[in-house]
Amino acid sequence: MEKINFSSENFCGVHDLIMKALTDANMGNMPSYGKDQFTLETIALFRQICGDGMEVYFTFNGTGANNFGLGCVAERHHSIFCSDVAHLYVDESTAPETFIGCRLYPVPSVNGKILPDALESRIRRVGDLHHPQPRVVSVTQPTEFGTVYTIAEMKAIKAVCAANDLLLHVDGARFFNAAVHLNASLKAISKEAGVDILTLGGTKSGLMFGEAVIFFHPDAGNAYRYHLKRSMQLASKNRFIAVQFQRLLQGELWRDIARHTNELANCLAREIEGIAVGGGDLAMGGVKLVYPVESNAVFVHMPKALQQQMQDVASFYWWNEERSEARFVFSFNNTAEEVGRFAEKLRERM
Amino acid sequence: MEKINFSSENFCGVHDLIMKALTDANMGNMPSYGKDQFTLETIALFRQICGDGMEVYFTFNGTGANNFGLGCVAERHHSIFCSDVAHLYVDESTAPETFIGCRLYPVPSVNGKILPDALESRIRRVGDLHHPQPRVVSVTQPTEFGTVYTIAEMKAIKAVCAANDLLLHVDGARFFNAAVHLNASLKAISKEAGVDILTLGGTKSGLMFGEAVIFFHPDAGNAYRYHLKRSMQLASKNRFIAVQFQRLLQGELWRDIARHTNELANCLAREIEGIAVGGGDLAMGGVKLVYPVESNAVFVHMPKALQQQMQDVASFYWWNEERSEARFVFSFNNTAEEVGRFAEKLRERM
Amino acid sequence: MEKINFSSENFCGVHDLIMKALTDANMGNMPSYGKDQFTLETIALFRQICGDGMEVYFTFNGTGANNFGLGCVAERHHSIFCSDVAHLYVDESTAPETFIGCRLYPVPSVNGKILPDALESRIRRVGDLHHPQPRVVSVTQPTEFGTVYTIAEMKAIKAVCAANDLLLHVDGARFFNAAVHLNASLKAISKEAGVDILTLGGTKSGLMFGEAVIFFHPDAGNAYRYHLKRSMQLASKNRFIAVQFQRLLQGELWRDIARHTNELANCLAREIEGIAVGGGDLAMGGVKLVYPVESNAVFVHMPKALQQQMQDVASFYWWNEERSEARFVFSFNNTAEEVGRFAEKLRERM
Amino acid sequence: MEKINFSSENFCGVHDLIMKALTDANMGNMPSYGKDQFTLETIALFRQICGDGMEVYFTFNGTGANNFGLGCVAERHHSIFCSDVAHLYVDESTAPETFIGCRLYPVPSVNGKILPDALESRIRRVGDLHHPQPRVVSVTQPTEFGTVYTIAEMKAIKAVCAANDLLLHVDGARFFNAAVHLNASLKAISKEAGVDILTLGGTKSGLMFGEAVIFFHPDAGNAYRYHLKRSMQLASKNRFIAVQFQRLLQGELWRDIARHTNELANCLAREIEGIAVGGGDLAMGGVKLVYPVESNAVFVHMPKALQQQMQDVASFYWWNEERSEARFVFSFNNTAEEVGRFAEKLRERM
Repeated sequence: MEKINFSSENFCGVHDLIMKALTDANMGNMPSYGKDQFTLETIALFRQICGDGMEVYFTFNGTGANNFGLGCVAERHHSIFCSDVAHLYVDESTAPETFIGCRLYPVPSVNGKILPDALESRIRRVGDLHHPQPRVVSVTQPTEFGTVYTIAEMKAIKAVCAANDLLLHVDGARFFNAAVHLNASLKAISKEAGVDILTLGGTKSGLMFGEAVIFFHPDAGNAYRYHLKRSMQLASKNRFIAVQFQRLLQGELWRDIARHTNELANCLAREIEGIAVGGGDLAMGGVKLVYPVESNAVFVHMPKALQQQMQDVASFYWWNEERSEARFVFSFNNTAEEVGRFAEKLRERM
Repeated sequence: MEKINFSSENFCGVHDLIMKALTDANMGNMPSYGKDQFTLETIALFRQICGDGMEVYFTFNGTGANNFGLGCVAERHHSIFCSDVAHLYVDESTAPETFIGCRLYPVPSVNGKILPDALESRIRRVGDLHHPQPRVVSVTQPTEFGTVYTIAEMKAIKAVCAANDLLLHVDGARFFNAAVHLNASLKAISKEAGVDILTLGGTKSGLMFGEAVIFFHPDAGNAYRYHLKRSMQLASKNRFIAVQFQRLLQGELWRDIARHTNELANCLAREIEGIAVGGGDLAMGGVKLVYPVESNAVFVHMPKALQQQMQDVASFYWWNEERSEARFVFSFNNTAEEVGRFAEKLRERM
Repeated sequence: MEKINFSSENFCGVHDLIMKALTDANMGNMPSYGKDQFTLETIALFRQICGDGMEVYFTFNGTGANNFGLGCVAERHHSIFCSDVAHLYVDESTAPETFIGCRLYPVPSVNGKILPDALESRIRRVGDLHHPQPRVVSVTQPTEFGTVYTIAEMKAIKAVCAANDLLLHVDGARFFNAAVHLNASLKAISKEAGVDILTLGGTKSGLMFGEAVIFFHPDAGNAYRYHLKRSMQLASKNRFIAVQFQRLLQGELWRDIARHTNELANCLAREIEGIAVGGGDLAMGGVKLVYPVESNAVFVHMPKALQQQMQDVASFYWWNEERSEARFVFSFNNTAEEVGRFAEKLRERM
Repeated sequence: MEKINFSSENFCGVHDLIMKALTDANMGNMPSYGKDQFTLETIALFRQICGDGMEVYFTFNGTGANNFGLGCVAERHHSIFCSDVAHLYVDESTAPETFIGCRLYPVPSVNGKILPDALESRIRRVGDLHHPQPRVVSVTQPTEFGTVYTIAEMKAIKAVCAANDLLLHVDGARFFNAAVHLNASLKAISKEAGVDILTLGGTKSGLMFGEAVIFFHPDAGNAYRYHLKRSMQLASKNRFIAVQFQRLLQGELWRDIARHTNELANCLAREIEGIAVGGGDLAMGGVKLVYPVESNAVFVHMPKALQQQMQDVASFYWWNEERSEARFVFSFNNTAEEVGRFAEKLRERM
């Protein structure tokens, strides 16, 4: 029996319906570099869903998407605020410096989230030529810890942005999971929540590769398309990125996938809570949830030895050695049976 | 009847065998970021074919491949020499400056090729801190005009490199077509010809996406893998790039494809030569070949009006308005019948 | 009577002996770009003082010096650690990203100093290609708050560097003041304390302009000189930077100046302590020292209204509005009489 | 007797009147970073001379000035056109890539000058996202070969710029010499000739250090001052740059200096022409002028052996080994007697 994957959505392959869309799109010749019908249709579909007036670009991967999107709006004397645990800040090597060329300033986070006050207190020295000038706030939704900004929380961040003439970028590598958790439309949690630029992740939702970057309020005469090429993210056979997003959007396939993976997370969370009698005291060999479970990831405080034992049942990340935390993340091809099997084994070993 | 595509290998979709390999590779969970079995097997296959001791990386596209590869070896005070018509110099926006951060110096070309003397005369002021310091020569094989450096020509370029302590990079977006033209192995025209870094194109040979970058003489303790991430080219589900290359290499599928497309180019070339009675005098409405036809591209000097008329039969690029030149390039899904049909129509309209 | 300057060493002009050296050096023709006798002599003098085997370069200003020095050793996939209040991090705009192109990671500081444990806990994910790779630690000596690392403290930082294969850079914009405070030679607190790269400030010690960057352990075949030009810091008439440093080093003029300015700081500190009866309770209108006074700067916690009143006696920076802190910094042309006059007025107004 | 310097204006020191201005400006405390009275007065003086509405910044050196000025207006997806012999292109290392981050495209030159037709033919593929987008033309006035664009020639370049929506930058390291040659005001040959951004050189005119960058048509809300800091060119004690320019402008001291150095060039040119009997046939040991002598530089075609002999009389650059050309350039402290002495010795050795 194959070992269960709770490690990463990047371990699973491609969702069957997406793979079918890819093979179906392989139907002869089409213009390259995004002038094909699939790209045009998919952009139209995005506009239908999220509102007119926006621009949509496609990139190969998430690091490309974040850096392309932010690189379109941040100039070289600017700073970008993000949480101190943001993927942008700790998992994208020096791509931000390389490609955008401006400063990233970390904002302390709580459960992965930036709070408006913490953000506000980091906005300093506007107009002081010695200091990088604030320009964009980048938040991750859901956060790297699986928590989700409520619409009200997002609007509160936006209010700080608006008051300080900052743009709001969302790194939405798992954005669909946030939409399911909030039981809201994509539009309600992006454009209507005040988002200016959205990195909308596809790969983690079952695509082979590909992310979308949406500018909800594009500048007149903007140079986004030049930046796309400059960022080495312009796909020659772009139809094969676009068609995957088209399929994901059709009939809200993304919602089915995200609902499924969120449910698995909740399922494991309930199991952990059930097990965590005695308060999850590590010294006593206990386990407990670290963060509220609001998307498809579960962070569990557990003894290292137990963690090592459990790796024979499923692969998962030993996220933080120091804090003794493991991460479990769910993909479209995980099942409730897998969660059950894992939990049962865990109970046995407690 | 669909219009024939002689515009670009990016217009055709994915070769059937490659698409099959993609769907076959979608077989459950595998580690991400290149630690999967397909990536390991494909690298091993490359080593088997081209020799031990090399390092192989995969990127999403050609611009990413060139800039990643060159960015691994050129430091910020260096210069890179390339032909004045190189894709790197005229078709990759400012990615080289953005990502590599050093100077590109163009070398005048003949039929798309750099000549050793022209290269040598551009190598100046070594050791002079006011001047960018020569570090790499990048040649395109086949060139942007479809011509192919013979092995002797490549070695002559290498000799200039060796004498001046320069590395030799090859932009091989259509490298397989060169191998077929030279009737040589990949190893003979890369490592054995003195190439240090090779961008090996996949997309133009029928892949959905993906290029390989090969370092034949990697530095000990090199930072290539960090640069791959920094260049926003590290694929999370890398198996889907690797498996395409694996299939391309298996049974030398690449050779079948490149032989087919080279033959179509030769076929059109013969037709043009047949038509070009009267020396191809444009003023007389004539056509003629511009460059030796050595790979899968044919450049034809033709009257603009004729060019416009012929677009109803096939799409192709009006490459150079000033010089009245059209480009015809052949993809795996083009056929001899298409070439024949086009030539017949052309003859009718002369 | 001219208002007293306690604002900045940049407000005062040029020390008379330095100005004399400048006019004396204006003696006819000399080679440019650092090949003149003054540059050669000054480098020789530095070697005599600080030991053989080092390389010395001159830059125009401090931002240029820090970024040139760090840019010589940090590659584009690297990270640099500095304190969260470092000039490099908060007062050099985005020059580090622009010129060096790599990540700055802030380390929490105590009284402006990085502690070894805090540093160690920031060194993460070595060998992980997703994360910027640790390369250099930059500390400011004296710190931005006027405190001074003891030699033992510096060696403790160095020990962390050595254990983690990191280089140690010192931003010594006021390095001479540290040497006086520690009653040590320049060599003892730089090379012998484990410093690899030193930005040695001249401007704040009475120079018209100019800083020196010293590499104590230069790499064989390094490219420092190319980076100097690339950083736009290579002076054509470099003799006029070099001769200023030569004069500063001759007879340890720097020590006289730094002793004087340190003494003035101590003098004001004693006055503040004298005044600070009642514990410096702000609510009671009190004043008190914020940091240990160890160089030529004094930070004073004082009521805002009092601060505003005192600006008619002397100009000084209202350093931190939130914490109600003022900064007083002393220049070569300040006098004990000025400190006395200021203190007297302060006592009157309490 | 000291060897005569015909090598570089960087070899001579500081003009006496400039040095006096520097010592006079050393009069106590003044605000830093350009808020001092000298900076304000000098900017006002520039506006008085060249017209209102412009912005003036000061940098340390010429490489800093060019790259700061161009970096303010060129974004990262842009290209800059300059002559193939421009200082910017061959003598500023990779500072343009490092700091500006965009492409330099060389335009073939005649006698160092860009011709409008050559420029026009280089402006390609506007709107094509694969290609760097044209943004600025940078010309050197006088050119690196000492020739001077007439006002009509400059306006013809400007016309091409205007027709193609490009800005016009002038690298005026020796701009004052052009003004003298054209017998025109600074305004007539800059703002009125259509220049948008001017690098106005001070160092080569007798300053210790310092250049000015003038934006004649600044964008509203521009970020120039942030870019100045980011470029590591913001001087803390800026009064010492400003006062040198103030003195240079007062009573048109610059005109006296440039008239003197232009005259010396003409003087040597006449001597060479006098000697060049027989057409300057090198094979016959002859000498001849290479370019029209229009500023303070003279380029002479001469036998290598003769050149080597003459180095005992004066130092000068052996500019181009291949073309057997020497460069003689004149500084404020050269004299007619020196030119005469050199010419006499040259005649003796012919």
